[in-house]
Amino acid sequence: MITYDLDRRAPHQPKYEYLYRCIRRDVRTGALPAGTRLPSRRTLAAHLTTSVSTVEHAYELLVSEGYVVARAGSGFYVAPNRSQGVFEGTGDGLGRDDDPASADAPGDAGGKHVAAGSPGPGRAAGAAAGGHAFAGEPDHIDFRANWCSMDLFPAETWARIMRKTLSDRNEALFRTVPFNGLAELRRAIAAYLYEFKGMRCSPDRIVVGAGTEYLYGRLLQLFGPGTIIAIGDPGYKKLAQVSRHAGILWNYVPLDGEGLSTGFLRQNPADVVHASPANAFPTGIVMSAARRHELLDWLHADPSRFLIEDDYDSELRFAGHALPSLFTQDDSDRVIYLNTFSKTLVPSLRISYMVLPETLMDLYRSQMSFYSCTVSSFEQLALAEFISQGHFERHINRLTRYYRRQRAAMVDALAASDLARIATFQVPDVGTHLIASVRTRMSDETVKRAARRRSMNLAMLSDYYVRPVARDVHRIVINFASIGPDQLDLAVGLLADVFRDDIDRASRAGA
Amino acid sequence: MITYDLDRRAPHQPKYEYLYRCIRRDVRTGALPAGTRLPSRRTLAAHLTTSVSTVEHAYELLVSEGYVVARAGSGFYVAPNRSQGVFEGTGDGLGRDDDPASADAPGDAGGKHVAAGSPGPGRAAGAAAGGHAFAGEPDHIDFRANWCSMDLFPAETWARIMRKTLSDRNEALFRTVPFNGLAELRRAIAAYLYEFKGMRCSPDRIVVGAGTEYLYGRLLQLFGPGTIIAIGDPGYKKLAQVSRHAGILWNYVPLDGEGLSTGFLRQNPADVVHASPANAFPTGIVMSAARRHELLDWLHADPSRFLIEDDYDSELRFAGHALPSLFTQDDSDRVIYLNTFSKTLVPSLRISYMVLPETLMDLYRSQMSFYSCTVSSFEQLALAEFISQGHFERHINRLTRYYRRQRAAMVDALAASDLARIATFQVPDVGTHLIASVRTRMSDETVKRAARRRSMNLAMLSDYYVRPVARDVHRIVINFASIGPDQLDLAVGLLADVFRDDIDRASRAGA
Repeated sequence: MITYDLDRRAPHQPKYEYLYRCIRRDVRTGALPAGTRLPSRRTLAAHLTTSVSTVEHAYELLVSEGYVVARAGSGFYVAPNRSQGVFEGTGDGLGRDDDPASADAPGDAGGKHVAAGSPGPGRAAGAAAGGHAFAGEPDHIDFRANWCSMDLFPAETWARIMRKTLSDRNEALFRTVPFNGLAELRRAIAAYLYEFKGMRCSPDRIVVGAGTEYLYGRLLQLFGPGTIIAIGDPGYKKLAQVSRHAGILWNYVPLDGEGLSTGFLRQNPADVVHASPANAFPTGIVMSAARRHELLDWLHADPSRFLIEDDYDSELRFAGHALPSLFTQDDSDRVIYLNTFSKTLVPSLRISYMVLPETLMDLYRSQMSFYSCTVSSFEQLALAEFISQGHFERHINRLTRYYRRQRAAMVDALAASDLARIATFQVPDVGTHLIASVRTRMSDETVKRAARRRSMNLAMLSDYYVRPVARDVHRIVINFASIGPDQLDLAVGLLADVFRDDIDRASRAGA
Repeated sequence: MITYDLDRRAPHQPKYEYLYRCIRRDVRTGALPAGTRLPSRRTLAAHLTTSVSTVEHAYELLVSEGYVVARAGSGFYVAPNRSQGVFEGTGDGLGRDDDPASADAPGDAGGKHVAAGSPGPGRAAGAAAGGHAFAGEPDHIDFRANWCSMDLFPAETWARIMRKTLSDRNEALFRTVPFNGLAELRRAIAAYLYEFKGMRCSPDRIVVGAGTEYLYGRLLQLFGPGTIIAIGDPGYKKLAQVSRHAGILWNYVPLDGEGLSTGFLRQNPADVVHASPANAFPTGIVMSAARRHELLDWLHADPSRFLIEDDYDSELRFAGHALPSLFTQDDSDRVIYLNTFSKTLVPSLRISYMVLPETLMDLYRSQMSFYSCTVSSFEQLALAEFISQGHFERHINRLTRYYRRQRAAMVDALAASDLARIATFQVPDVGTHLIASVRTRMSDETVKRAARRRSMNLAMLSDYYVRPVARDVHRIVINFASIGPDQLDLAVGLLADVFRDDIDRASRAGA
């Protein structure tokens, strides 16, 4: 049985931590190969003459980091793929079970911008999304991951700016930060919105916060209990959870090809509507001009109504022209504009912002300004500099070029694959995913299980619906963000394998 | 009248932004001296043949940054002290009106850790707190500022670690971050708590969040509407505001010399008690051993009760020995421990954490884990490194030495001053403020006005009470954190001047 001398731990080092490190080391070095069954907590505790809770803590840590897998009933096992040291320093957060990405609608967590992970083989989703750790490894294809390779992030520039910020602007770290964010950043955002989206807004109307969810939380609290918000179905379901915590009621509004059903809105109560006209999540539906006008008519029909425009993905446009934002189309100053940098820059950089109508800003100031800004000055200043110097624009252009290639490659690969015999593909102009409508006899659950057996991380459009979806409609949400050239053929091949029977059947029928 | 050619602005640059920059430049260079009255919005708009809203936006910005002061009725004036370029690059957040610190109980904002600012002369509070911009300037003495000179912050070390983090740990920026924070940071915090406070807690019980208020918000939402929380009076009043937003009811518990009145708790309903046993805010009262036991008895009397231990200031201890935390004293696993790095490191670094009981952690995981962690990975990794390498401990020791000197100097200066004739001083062992009980005929409001006339930023203990305070009791909260040696005599002298009449009267009576 594994044996460690707990007395050899550092002074003050908790036993559980020492034990954790010992086992982790042996897993990494391969001394404990993948699949090895670890002794039970009691047995090991007795063997090391320590408390069960010590072993418990150590095992908890190892499990939480994916070094060890707990199998209900049968105990603890060294996880697969943990014994090549590839995880050195990356031992955490790779889609762990307590990870929002797997706890919630996949690809939906982190303000829709976090790669989904799943326990077991899929646990490397995060890393795959990172675009490197598992690049090329067949068993970590992630069709859900919602961000690009880290290679695209201008780390050098970012590092330089942060260095500069810390040396030149040290004093800024000690300033009282306005509740809505530092003026430098709000000015940079206002200028960006004006230049690239033709949006005219005073920096004083902007509220900077640590992520989209945080801002939604505050905003909904501002509307107050009893307010009814209309959320798209399919859509950003997490908003319903945030609403519950804020005592807000919600309605799910069906979408058709033109966007949110205004017919439904006319027949059902709602004070606030949540919309992503540029790119409805996850269908990629762009709201038609007619529908936008109908939606604004709904807004103007009652002076107490508000509209939230979540523009989360609009920077990534590959074809066509963007319609002006509802924020600019509306002249009643009752559209709240919301966007984030987590998707376009780095998922773990928690910086989002909203532009509030004047009336709401006054209310926010009186009700919410006692909450300190949740983003550290340091990153606010760095981002302000990053935007003002034009790095953000360049980065977006680089991203768009990169994704356009990846998108084209994915479309070609799919069209050329066997899958094309039983599937049609909808490719939105905006965002990093496309929809494959597949003719299969399998249920969506069966499809996902089959994919998981091939260690693919797959989401079906039905996952994002609240209302039941017709049982004979099967649409896969294919996010190509993390599927690099080296993974492409493999990914599409494995995807086709999932539907092998359907494809063969179709071929026979065709033959 | 001031004249600028708006056509000379950069392509795509909004007019208001160009106008704002023009005026700001002239204020900084002195071309527009302090006190200059600016033309009315209409007049200037007509003069520059632009829209009133353009001028409005520009003025708003200048006011929000303190370059210009708006006087009700009489228009806009160039603010004092803005024309020496000392503000170059520091144009924001210096206690602006929309600053949480001035919107709320002073010194209470930002999880109790942000310097209070006030409009007008006091607006430089933040900078004074920053310990440099106004050092020595008589009209910016801040007895409220709740943090130390930036010179104490190990900027070099921090910069080095962040550089290293960005280069070595780039991949980490792309990882899926667990809802409760990166394991590296949670492990570092757990080890720190164990080593320095003897607290044994698994990193899996720790939740990292962007500031204390954020964590309180989540925690209270977890308790759910209808819960009754008991808050000290005087105490952390902001918690009542957070409670209101979470639908939580609250009770104000009076404090006596030993801490929260458990008698009151026994006679009034409460499900959760908020306490700072190591250092009640702002009185500095340390909860007696007896009172701690009574409080734990209250906790154990009902299995549904919880206790929040806010340990915000306990790192800064100048005398005596710390009693063990309630977290360690309790054996029922129903104490929530909460602390922050904003106070001890940098106010604008929004990183706090709480340690949850197992039952609450399970609940938190199921209800709240869909919220992404609000702190960027980058700062989490840097802080983890900073703690693990022992920099945090060294920093705390340096801070403590520095404050101990400052505290002693303040006590000596007060004792030697005329003020001593009419005042007695209570000097807590923990935290950066002391209380001066003054015999004066003035009301607390009069005292504060008199102080403000001398451009001092002063808070009275009565500001922190909800219940009325006896009219003949006058206690000043003197926070010495931002009063450096160069300011000390001046500060104490000006403070004595406020009470000149009382002092003279006392002398005559004494003579």
